Amino acid sequence: MALRVQKYGGTSVADIEHINRVADRVQKSQDQGDQIVVVLSAMSGVTDSLIRLAEQASKTPDKRELDVLLATGEQTTAALLAMILKSRGYKAKSFLGFQAGIQTNKISGKARIMDINGTNILHALADGHIAVVAGFQGADEDGAITTLGRGGSDTSAVAIASALKADVCEIFTDVDGVYTTDPRICSSARKIDRISYEEMLEMAILGAKVLQIRSVEFAKKYNVPVHVRSSFNEEKGTMVVNESSDMESVVVSGITCDMNEARITFKKVPDQPGISAKIFSPLAQAEIGVDMIIQNTRSGGETDLTFTVTKDDFERAREISERVGKEVGAHEILTAVEIAKVSVIGLGMKSHSGVAATMFQALASENINIRLISTSEIRISCVILAKYAELAVRTLHSAFGLDKEK
Amino acid sequence: MALRVQKYGGTSVADIEHINRVADRVQKSQDQGDQIVVVLSAMSGVTDSLIRLAEQASKTPDKRELDVLLATGEQTTAALLAMILKSRGYKAKSFLGFQAGIQTNKISGKARIMDINGTNILHALADGHIAVVAGFQGADEDGAITTLGRGGSDTSAVAIASALKADVCEIFTDVDGVYTTDPRICSSARKIDRISYEEMLEMAILGAKVLQIRSVEFAKKYNVPVHVRSSFNEEKGTMVVNESSDMESVVVSGITCDMNEARITFKKVPDQPGISAKIFSPLAQAEIGVDMIIQNTRSGGETDLTFTVTKDDFERAREISERVGKEVGAHEILTAVEIAKVSVIGLGMKSHSGVAATMFQALASENINIRLISTSEIRISCVILAKYAELAVRTLHSAFGLDKEK
Repeated sequence: MALRVQKYGGTSVADIEHINRVADRVQKSQDQGDQIVVVLSAMSGVTDSLIRLAEQASKTPDKRELDVLLATGEQTTAALLAMILKSRGYKAKSFLGFQAGIQTNKISGKARIMDINGTNILHALADGHIAVVAGFQGADEDGAITTLGRGGSDTSAVAIASALKADVCEIFTDVDGVYTTDPRICSSARKIDRISYEEMLEMAILGAKVLQIRSVEFAKKYNVPVHVRSSFNEEKGTMVVNESSDMESVVVSGITCDMNEARITFKKVPDQPGISAKIFSPLAQAEIGVDMIIQNTRSGGETDLTFTVTKDDFERAREISERVGKEVGAHEILTAVEIAKVSVIGLGMKSHSGVAATMFQALASENINIRLISTSEIRISCVILAKYAELAVRTLHSAFGLDKEK
Repeated sequence: MALRVQKYGGTSVADIEHINRVADRVQKSQDQGDQIVVVLSAMSGVTDSLIRLAEQASKTPDKRELDVLLATGEQTTAALLAMILKSRGYKAKSFLGFQAGIQTNKISGKARIMDINGTNILHALADGHIAVVAGFQGADEDGAITTLGRGGSDTSAVAIASALKADVCEIFTDVDGVYTTDPRICSSARKIDRISYEEMLEMAILGAKVLQIRSVEFAKKYNVPVHVRSSFNEEKGTMVVNESSDMESVVVSGITCDMNEARITFKKVPDQPGISAKIFSPLAQAEIGVDMIIQNTRSGGETDLTFTVTKDDFERAREISERVGKEVGAHEILTAVEIAKVSVIGLGMKSHSGVAATMFQALASENINIRLISTSEIRISCVILAKYAELAVRTLHSAFGLDKEK
C-alpha cells in the first residue's frame, strides 16, 4: 500500500465533466489499495474571473481580502470532487488549507508555507477516506486565509507529500511530462524520464511552466519524489528526483527559451565603488526584480552595465533608469525589448568541460549573435535577438544530442 | 458610541454597485462614531447557482460538502465589501464564520449555533476596524464548515449582536419593515413601528419572510433589539423588542396568509389509543414536518383526523398516508391542495376575549367557510379555500382596525 498525493490543475477540473474524470482516476488509485490525498486547483479561468471582480471593487484590491476571495476557487472544486466521490460510494472528505494544517507566513498573495500539521489528513486516511485538499491556500498564525501565488497548488501538493512522508507526489497536468525543450518550437523534443531537482529548478525559473518554482525548491529541500504526468492518459511522465551519479553522464538535459525579458544598458558609467548600488537600489524599492546583471570592463575609468527585467516591469524600470542615469553620469541608456534568453541546463556541466564552447559554436554556425551571457553551475544562458529564438533552440537541441531517436 | 450589527441581504449585495452602496451606508455609520459589525449574505441568486452546480455533481449532494461549497457565496461578498471599505481609507477586515468564532452543531445544511466566541471581532473593533462577517456559516467543534439554512445570515447577525452585547441588530432588507399584512394583498397594510418577539415569531412561522424564524427565537432568548429596515432609504423600520405592557392594548398586530400548505384527512379511523402514533411516526421517519393537527370527535368509536404539511412534502405525505390508512382501517383519505391558512396574531389576545368570535364573524360576513381552526396563546389560524385568501386577509385587516388612517 502506497500513500500517493495527486495534484490536478485547472484544466483537469475545468467543469463537472472533467471533475468526474478526475474522480475516475482517483477511484482507480484507491481501488488498487493505495491511500490517496488529492490536491486541486480552481477551475481554469476562475481565479482570473475573481481577480477581475476584485478589480471592479477596487483599483488596487487589498491583498488580505483578495486572498479570502481567491480561496473560494479551490474551495469549490474540492467540495465538488468530494461530493462526486461520496455519491459513488467512496469515503471522501474535503479539507480547506487551514483544515489541512497548512500554516504560512503573513505575506498575502504569495505566502510561504512555514509548517504543515498533517494530523487531520492522516486521521481521515486511517479512517479509509480519500482526502481532497483545496490547493493554493493556507492560513497564517492568526488564522487569516492566505494564498501561495500562481501555481501554488503544486507547492501545496509537494508540501503535503513531504509532511505525510508520501511515497510519491503526482502532478497531473495537460502535458505528458517535462520535455527536453518546448515541443511547439522543436518537433524533435523528447519527454525526459528522470530529471534532478536542480535541473528542474533551473528549467522552472527559465520559463518551463510545468511546475511552480517553489514547489521544486520544496521537493528538493525535503527530498519528495515528484511525478509529472498527463491527466488525459496513463503513460508514465517525468520523475523529478535527487541527482544520481548516472545523471551526470547526460551533459545537457534541456533547453529553455524565455521571451519574457527586456534589456536595459547604462552606457559608459564611471567605474567607481557604489555605482551599482545607486542603480539597483531604486529598482529594488520599486519592487522590480532584476534577472541577469552583466558589467563589461571598458578602458578610461568607465564601464557598461546591462541588466534584464521582465517585460511587465520594463516600462517602470526604463523610467527609473533614465532618471538614475542622469544622476550617475551615464552617457546614455539603451534598451531592447525584442530579445530572448536561451539556456542549456544539465547536471553534467559540473563534470564536463566544453559545454559553453559547444553552445557558442552552435549559435555562431547559424550566424546568431550573442548579446549577453550568464552562467550558473548547471546552466548557461545567452541573450539573443528574439527573431532567432526558435532557430537557436532547435540548433542547440540538436547540437547537444537531445533530438528524438528516429 | 454605539455598537451596531448591520445585516445586509442578498438583494442589497447583488453586484459590485450594490456592495458599494452598502459601503456608503456602513461608512456613514462609522463616521458617526459607532462601532460597526457588518454581516453579509451571498449575492442574490448565487446560493441557488451553487446548489445547481452541486446537483450536476451528484443527484443527492453530500450535505457536508454542500456546506463547504455554499459557504463560498458569503466569503465572496465579505471579501469584496472589506476591499471596498479599505480602498476608501477605512480599516476593515473580513471574517469567515469560523474566524468570527461561530461554533455550531454538526447538522450540515441547517446547523444551529451553539456558542459564539467574539474575541476576534472585539479585538478588531477595539483596533478601529469595521468587522465584515460572512453570514450563514459557522464551524462545528471539529472545524468543519457548516451552514445555518435559508435566511441563516439573519441568525448570524442576531447571534453576533448577542455575543458582543451590541446596542442594536439592524436587518437591512428590500422592504421598509414588518407590515400588518402583505401590502401586495392589502393596500391599506401599515408598517408596524414596534412588535414583540412573540408576535414576530408567529408571523415568521406563518410565512412573513422578512426574518428567519431562528433569528427571532435567538433574539427573544437573548433579548437582542432587532431593527428591520430598508437598505434603500433612511426611514426607521420596525423594532422587534421585548413585550411591554402598552403593547397589549393592541389586540391584533398582524394578519398573515400562508398558501404553502396542503391538507390530508383520515376519515373515520378507529378512536383507539396509539392510532395517532401509527399515523405520524412514518411521516416523521420520512422527515416530513406536520403543521396543524386537528382531530374531530365522531360518534361510534370513530374519529376524523386532519393535518397539514407543506406543498413540497405533500406528494410523499399522501403516498405514506394511503399506505398507513389501510393499516389503521381508515375509510378513506381526503386531500386538498388549494387551501390557505389565514392567521391573526396579537399579544393582546392574552388579555382580550372575543378575538376568535370577531374573526369568525368577519369571515362569515363574506361567506368564507372555515375548514380547520387552530390556536395558540397569541394566534388564531383558519384554513380556508385558497380562492378566498386575499378577500379574507383584507376583511380581517379591516375588522381588527389595522387599516391605514386616511
